Amino acid sequence: MPEGVIYLDGNSLGPMPVGVPGALEEMLHKEWGAQLIRGWNTAGWMAQPTRVGDMVGRLIGAPAGSVVMGDTLSVKVYQAVAAALKMRPDRGLILSDTGNFPTDLYMVEGLISTLDRGYELRTVEPGAVADAIDETVAVVMLTEVDYRTGRMHDMNAITARAREAGAVMIWDLAHSAGAIPVDIAGSEAEFAVGCTYKYLNGGPGAPAFIYVRPDLADSIEPALSGWLGHRDPFEFKLNYQPGAGIERMRVGTPPVLQMTTLEFAMKAWDGVDMADVRAASVALQERFIEGVGRAVPQLALASPRDSAQRGSQVSFRFENGYAAMQALIHHDVIGDFRAPDIMRFGFTPLYLDAGDVDEAVARIARVMHDRLWDRPEFKTRNRVT
Amino acid sequence: MPEGVIYLDGNSLGPMPVGVPGALEEMLHKEWGAQLIRGWNTAGWMAQPTRVGDMVGRLIGAPAGSVVMGDTLSVKVYQAVAAALKMRPDRGLILSDTGNFPTDLYMVEGLISTLDRGYELRTVEPGAVADAIDETVAVVMLTEVDYRTGRMHDMNAITARAREAGAVMIWDLAHSAGAIPVDIAGSEAEFAVGCTYKYLNGGPGAPAFIYVRPDLADSIEPALSGWLGHRDPFEFKLNYQPGAGIERMRVGTPPVLQMTTLEFAMKAWDGVDMADVRAASVALQERFIEGVGRAVPQLALASPRDSAQRGSQVSFRFENGYAAMQALIHHDVIGDFRAPDIMRFGFTPLYLDAGDVDEAVARIARVMHDRLWDRPEFKTRNRVT
Repeated sequence: MPEGVIYLDGNSLGPMPVGVPGALEEMLHKEWGAQLIRGWNTAGWMAQPTRVGDMVGRLIGAPAGSVVMGDTLSVKVYQAVAAALKMRPDRGLILSDTGNFPTDLYMVEGLISTLDRGYELRTVEPGAVADAIDETVAVVMLTEVDYRTGRMHDMNAITARAREAGAVMIWDLAHSAGAIPVDIAGSEAEFAVGCTYKYLNGGPGAPAFIYVRPDLADSIEPALSGWLGHRDPFEFKLNYQPGAGIERMRVGTPPVLQMTTLEFAMKAWDGVDMADVRAASVALQERFIEGVGRAVPQLALASPRDSAQRGSQVSFRFENGYAAMQALIHHDVIGDFRAPDIMRFGFTPLYLDAGDVDEAVARIARVMHDRLWDRPEFKTRNRVT
Repeated sequence: MPEGVIYLDGNSLGPMPVGVPGALEEMLHKEWGAQLIRGWNTAGWMAQPTRVGDMVGRLIGAPAGSVVMGDTLSVKVYQAVAAALKMRPDRGLILSDTGNFPTDLYMVEGLISTLDRGYELRTVEPGAVADAIDETVAVVMLTEVDYRTGRMHDMNAITARAREAGAVMIWDLAHSAGAIPVDIAGSEAEFAVGCTYKYLNGGPGAPAFIYVRPDLADSIEPALSGWLGHRDPFEFKLNYQPGAGIERMRVGTPPVLQMTTLEFAMKAWDGVDMADVRAASVALQERFIEGVGRAVPQLALASPRDSAQRGSQVSFRFENGYAAMQALIHHDVIGDFRAPDIMRFGFTPLYLDAGDVDEAVARIARVMHDRLWDRPEFKTRNRVT
C-alpha cells in the first residue's frame, strides 16, 4: 500500500497483492514467452477458468465444479437472465430493485429489447421485493449488498419466496464474495454472478464468475454459446453442442494474464474462514460509525445501523459529498463517491486495522470541520470516480 | 523467441514482444499498486479501449473513433449480429459459410435460439457465398481468411453484393488484422470484429475489437447494453441510454492488464505499412510452398496456390497430420493441427525470415521421410492443440 494511504475503497478495486508482479513476470517468461501456443496445455491455461472458479466457489458456498470464471459481470448477468427466462417460458416479468447496480438492469433492458416479445423489467424499492414476488414473476434478480448503502438482502428468505412462487433466483454477489459469508448452495438459488476485482483483489478488469446450481447445469441453454463452452471445442464442428455442466457457461478465449493474476490473488484466501473476515469487518465498521458519529455528527449515516443488515461498507450522505471525497482522497483517505450524495467507505480486514480506522476518522473530521472540501479543484467533476 | 524454435503459429497465438514484462511490471507498480482506484482516471484506464481501438483501426483501414476493444471475439460477434438483425426486422436469414470459424456460427445459433422466432442460419460452401446472397438475407457474416486453409474471400466484391441485396455485412478479421492489408471503411461493410492475440501479439486472451461503420454507430441498438456503453455510466441512472457512437459497444469493466499488454504490443506497428508486411509474408509463404513441394511432395497443399487468394498461412493435408504436427513441435517447428487433417503454418514477417523458412522445410522433410511421427506419444490426442 502506498505510504500514508488509508485505503477504504477495496469494495471498488482491491489493492495489488504483494507478489503479483513477480507471479506475472514468471508467467510471462515461463509460459507465454517460452511455451507459446503450447501454454494452453502445458501451463494449464485452458483449465484455469474452472480451477479458479473452484477457489472463488469455496468463499461463496458453491461446491467444486459449479463456478466458472470469464468475461465481465455484465456478460455473466446476461447469461444468467437469458438462461433463466428459457426456464420459465410462460412468464414475462423480471423483478429487481432500485438499489441494484445499474449494469445489471441495463443488461436486462438490452436482453428484453433484443427478445422483443413483451418482457417487462420491474424495479421496486429494496424493502418491497419480497412482497412483489408472485406467480407472474419469471426471474428475481438482485444484488445481495447495495452498492450505495451497503444494505443487505436476506438471501435465504427471498430465495425461498421466489421458489414458492416458481420464479428463478439470480444473485449478484459483487459486494459479497470475499466480504461476507455466503452459502449459495444452501440458499438453493439457481444462479449467482459476481466480480473479483473488489474484495478478491484480482486487479482492474479481473474476470467475473458465474455459478449454476449443479442439478440444473446440464440442462440450461446458453445464450452466449461460444466455442469454449462447446462439448468438444477442438473438433471444430459446425454445430454447437453444450459442454458438461458449468463448462457451457464459458464463452470465448479466457484472458490468461488476468486469470493468472486472480489465481495468485486467491492464494491469500487459503485457509481463511469467511466468518472470521466478517467478524473483523463488522468490528472495523462499528468503530468507524461510532468514530464518525462522535467527531462529525453532521454526516448522515446512509447504511443500516444494524450490522446484520449491512455488508462490508459504510456510507454517509452529504450534499457536498463529491468535493468532500476529493478532499479526503487528497489527504490520503481513499473512499469513493456515488451519485447523488453518497460518500462510501469499504472495510477489508485483510489489510486494514483499528489504527487505520481511527486515523481515517481523524482525517475525515479535519476535512469536514475545516471545510477543506470547499475548494474549486475538488468540485470539478471527473467522469470517473 | 526460445532458442532453436521456429514459430509458425503466430496465426494462433503471437509470441511475447520483448518489452512486455517490463511494461506490465511498470503498470502494476505505478498504476494499480500506487494509484489504486484512481488509476481509472489518472492512468487513463477508462479511455484505453478506444485509444487502443484506434491503434488497431489504423491496420484495418478504420477511421479514428470507429473501433473499440473489449470482451472476446465470440462476444463481439454476438453484438454485431444482434445489432445487424435489428437493422433488418423484415428478414430472417443469416448467411455464412462452412469455412467460418465455428464460434462465429455457434454464437449465431445461441442468438437465434434465444430470439426463438424462426431465424435461420444457413452455411454454404465458401465459393457459393456470393450467389447465395439475395433479398431474403438479413445478415452476411464471414471470416475473411479461412482458419483452416488460409483461403481469402474477396471482401469488396462480397460486400458490394450484400449491399445490392440489402443485407448487412459483418466481417471477422481474426486472421486479417496485422496479416494482410484491409480497408474496412472502403469496403463499406457495416461491422467488423476480430481478435488481437494472433498477428497483433496481444497475449493469450487479449481483448477483441469491434468496428461499426461511422454513419451507423449512433443509431445501432446494443444487445449487450452494459454500463460502460452507457452515455453517462457514473450517473448510475436506472435506465440505459447508449453512449455516443462506438462507445455503446463497450459492455463491462475492461481487462486493464490485458489492455496494457496489447497497447504495448501495438507499438511494434508504429509506422509499419501493411503492404510491406503483406509482400514479405507472401515471399515467405512462396518459399515455404516451393520448399515443401520439392522436399515432401506427398504433403497435399490445402491452401490456394495463388497467393492473391491466400491469407498469411499455408496449410497441408496429411492423414496423420496430428501426429506429424506433434513430432514437428517436438523438433521445434511449431505450427498447429486443425481437425480433421490440416497441418497449419502461419507466416509473420515481423519475426520470421527466409532462413527460418528453409530450416523449417528441412525439419519437416526429416520428420516426414524418417516417419518420426510414427510414435505412440505423438498420436495421443490432447484436448487442446
